[in-house]
Amino acid sequence: MLDSLPTPSLLLDRPRLDRNLARLATHLGALGVPLRPHVKTAKSLPVIRRALKGQPGGVTVSTLHEAECCLEAGITDILFAVGIAPQKLRQVAALRLRGANLAVTLDSVAAAEYVRATSFAVSDDIPALIELDSDGHRAGVAPDGEALLAIGRALGPSLRGVMTHAGESYHCTSADALRAMAERERAAAVTAAERLRAAGLACPVVSVGSTPTALFAKDLTGVTEVRAGVHMFMDLVMAGLGVCAVDDIAISVLVTVIGHQAEKGWIITDGGWMALSRDRGTSAQAVDQGYGLVRDRDGRPLEDLVMSGASQEHGILSRRAGGTLDAAQFPLGTRLRILPNHACATAAQFGGYHVLGVERDTPVWWPRFNGW
Amino acid sequence: MLDSLPTPSLLLDRPRLDRNLARLATHLGALGVPLRPHVKTAKSLPVIRRALKGQPGGVTVSTLHEAECCLEAGITDILFAVGIAPQKLRQVAALRLRGANLAVTLDSVAAAEYVRATSFAVSDDIPALIELDSDGHRAGVAPDGEALLAIGRALGPSLRGVMTHAGESYHCTSADALRAMAERERAAAVTAAERLRAAGLACPVVSVGSTPTALFAKDLTGVTEVRAGVHMFMDLVMAGLGVCAVDDIAISVLVTVIGHQAEKGWIITDGGWMALSRDRGTSAQAVDQGYGLVRDRDGRPLEDLVMSGASQEHGILSRRAGGTLDAAQFPLGTRLRILPNHACATAAQFGGYHVLGVERDTPVWWPRFNGW
Repeated sequence: MLDSLPTPSLLLDRPRLDRNLARLATHLGALGVPLRPHVKTAKSLPVIRRALKGQPGGVTVSTLHEAECCLEAGITDILFAVGIAPQKLRQVAALRLRGANLAVTLDSVAAAEYVRATSFAVSDDIPALIELDSDGHRAGVAPDGEALLAIGRALGPSLRGVMTHAGESYHCTSADALRAMAERERAAAVTAAERLRAAGLACPVVSVGSTPTALFAKDLTGVTEVRAGVHMFMDLVMAGLGVCAVDDIAISVLVTVIGHQAEKGWIITDGGWMALSRDRGTSAQAVDQGYGLVRDRDGRPLEDLVMSGASQEHGILSRRAGGTLDAAQFPLGTRLRILPNHACATAAQFGGYHVLGVERDTPVWWPRFNGW
Repeated sequence: MLDSLPTPSLLLDRPRLDRNLARLATHLGALGVPLRPHVKTAKSLPVIRRALKGQPGGVTVSTLHEAECCLEAGITDILFAVGIAPQKLRQVAALRLRGANLAVTLDSVAAAEYVRATSFAVSDDIPALIELDSDGHRAGVAPDGEALLAIGRALGPSLRGVMTHAGESYHCTSADALRAMAERERAAAVTAAERLRAAGLACPVVSVGSTPTALFAKDLTGVTEVRAGVHMFMDLVMAGLGVCAVDDIAISVLVTVIGHQAEKGWIITDGGWMALSRDRGTSAQAVDQGYGLVRDRDGRPLEDLVMSGASQEHGILSRRAGGTLDAAQFPLGTRLRILPNHACATAAQFGGYHVLGVERDTPVWWPRFNGW
């Protein structure tokens, strides 16, 4: 199969996917907390169905397009985990009318008032989670601040709970730091939930998650669900953090050698940044993997060969330490795989997956839920 | 219209597009050389048709999918300007059989031999351009080296000419440097063409181009066609090089304010790196524009507001110099536009364009020729 595919193509190693899914499911199972898998990384129904095995059935989405695709597939319990724009509430209401138990996320009284106004207009209490800032990296209100209670009151019957995402976990560099960040994420959510309840407000949902904190949490007392997406595929950024091994990375980009610049030690391929994305997430890590780490056609390591440069449709592969390469070892037409820095960004460049490790006629998982 | 669009959406300002197209057409017209517009930036039939006005009608593509889309639209003269993978020659032959006058690009005797083998197998001389390395930045053979003639001989009746792309022009920082790079690109191509001809080989096509060199060339003697794509839209990288003004940038991403972190001076929007791409092409320039420069809904400057951070579906806007912002000036639901670092990368994140400045019912140019 790998010889007949067009290049660049996106490959998905199903045994690795299943191993990654089992790892988080086992970990969360031991902690007694269910997973609400995040659709944003895979954006693929067959992947999400596998991630939902043994879980309650709810998903997290990053776009309303993902929500729509999930609903069409019969997945109705959906959390839209990006702060709601007022203009999107009509579409949220329409999706709910079609059967989605779709909840939104917000972090201001103004947004809560928009949710209430739309709820009133459509005679349907749109449920909302209040986003908490557990690590200063993006959105959310302080778990111990006044805004939390004001938003809770403004939401009234739309209040479903609280959520937070410790995105700073992507900058933790030790297992201890990851464990501490997981506890910080949990504590923020539980503190906020308790404050809402103490104020007489209902807070059934206490939602946390990022792939690193989900996998490193030692205790999730008080948490009702965990969200994660990257754990399904893993990537070089996760490997650089110590969250996974390089051999856990389940997706790669299949490319073909189209030339050499022998004196420079360059192999040129037909996979550029359009295929890998411009993500350089490992550039700030201890080991900079360029645009990706090179494997042979069958996934075996080619030590120290990285994708050091990228144009739109050209990739440049070279030794990490520089120096020459034996071009004859990689003749024109040779197929190689590139492991990506960032699974979400690389997968988004493709319409779907060519699946390895499937014994069926059409090992193609298509389409991804790209766009908005 | 801008209030009713979903966000993030990709906007295309048609008057600016037309002005950019006219600028290059006028410049090349004065130099007496036609344009073979590059499809890779816009990947859009209505844009390409406008770029072809007054030109011979041939296009440049970066993928065979672009070639296929052009052929279906009746554009038959096509140059595939990425070094050919041997496995793609069957598809090239099939497109030629369907009526495409499709030429390939290569820079090795091995690739030339594959072209000849396929040409023999299908009884059709697949035309090829030899790629020249005019600036050391990527692929190609030396214009004054031995490989050039060896490849020319190996191509035999498939030899159509030479081509080069001075991608290093993206790192020139003065008009003089851009002019010098344009002359270096021209000289490389003309030198190689003359050497082939002196060796008794036909070399009708002498093809050069990049947006900076195309616009700064003062003399194109000996060149038969120029290739460019970014000139249609322009972007912050081009503005940073002095190739255009910020007000020439024809595409932008429409986003909606979804929150604030007032103490940090952050406005949070629903346009993250999935919309803008991860391209940080201005990071190495004199003025780092973050993930993009902010404009108001109608395109007017908001001085010193840049997109300083990006998650998948979140953008963070802040003052370039830091400091607080008046959140009340950008209330929840406010629409803003982000000018991109790199037009090719940002446009690739979308399925098509919402066109401004069109007096028709459906100012939508859809689809883009994304994928492979």
